[in-house]
Amino acid sequence: MDERRNPIQRLAHQLSRLPGIGEKTASRLAFHIIKMPEAYVRDLAQALLDVKTQVRHCSRCCNLTAVDPCVLCSDTRRRNDLLCVVERPSDIVAIERGRDFRGRYHVLHGALSPLDGIGPNDLKIPELLRRLADDAVKEVIMATDPDVEGDATALYLARLIRPLGIKVTRLAHGIPVGSELEYVDHATIQKALDNRREL
Amino acid sequence: MDERRNPIQRLAHQLSRLPGIGEKTASRLAFHIIKMPEAYVRDLAQALLDVKTQVRHCSRCCNLTAVDPCVLCSDTRRRNDLLCVVERPSDIVAIERGRDFRGRYHVLHGALSPLDGIGPNDLKIPELLRRLADDAVKEVIMATDPDVEGDATALYLARLIRPLGIKVTRLAHGIPVGSELEYVDHATIQKALDNRREL
Repeated sequence: MDERRNPIQRLAHQLSRLPGIGEKTASRLAFHIIKMPEAYVRDLAQALLDVKTQVRHCSRCCNLTAVDPCVLCSDTRRRNDLLCVVERPSDIVAIERGRDFRGRYHVLHGALSPLDGIGPNDLKIPELLRRLADDAVKEVIMATDPDVEGDATALYLARLIRPLGIKVTRLAHGIPVGSELEYVDHATIQKALDNRREL
Repeated sequence: MDERRNPIQRLAHQLSRLPGIGEKTASRLAFHIIKMPEAYVRDLAQALLDVKTQVRHCSRCCNLTAVDPCVLCSDTRRRNDLLCVVERPSDIVAIERGRDFRGRYHVLHGALSPLDGIGPNDLKIPELLRRLADDAVKEVIMATDPDVEGDATALYLARLIRPLGIKVTRLAHGIPVGSELEYVDHATIQKALDNRREL
């Protein structure tokens, strides 16, 4: 079948370029989409175009948003003295799932990585420092990833922020809730031992 | 975050309605799509609309196609005396991956299932019989699924087609190539024993 002439193969090919979707899954999705209501397919196509045309960075927190400032920055019920710094917009979604954190966010859009040529000015660090100068922030929680780059970024920022008289904290490392010790990696167990608390 | 106002959440919601894509995968895909080139996202959106507006059934083989007759029916290098009957258009894609079969196809769009109220007239069986009356078909290969409905459909069609003087065959059952015997289900092993061949 000629891929250029066949809309099904063309759709499958486009879908297979998405992460985690192989050729067979893409083909199955394409055949499924043909059978779905036309209204749904139109909505999906429109949603795809909308994210590219409407979504931009929030001028305050650098999160992805369609309105500026974003709903999290303009929510008056959130605390202004607590700021959570994350690497990616999707990290905010993960934290918001918990519904416990009621402070503000700042998205760095990456982590420091000298080997990849990513320095402070490639991240939203100038925006963060400008915010801390203006804002009433009393504590910054570093929620960057628990890997080499995330840890280095947290340490780098802590050194810049502490002199401003702002407390800097880091998300705790330890055994995930609900996990079985047997399957937890040794680096996590070591962190959990180091950070053990008296009962 | 308000789902209606946020294009990212809206896209994730639409994606999560696809089969095999849960909420977390949909969210990851949405964030990935924002970072992809706009040209790709436009092509994907267009491909989605195209399958709904351009794809219809081939008037000969009932396969999904954008041109009528479809490329398989209009391919003059294929044999006209050999016809492979399948349940779904995606089955043709699976068989064509092998590049060994050079005959024609007919898509039933389902299998007989009295419990679900699916009888011969709900499938493309009248179209198949009309084709066999006109065409130069000498052998019909029943490639319906190896389950109760697929087997029943194959037997039902065999009884209709044999009186026309046309040979009817069924795909062989047996151990899949490259599989480990240990992990093959007992029904397949039984079929493989029943159909054993002398070396």
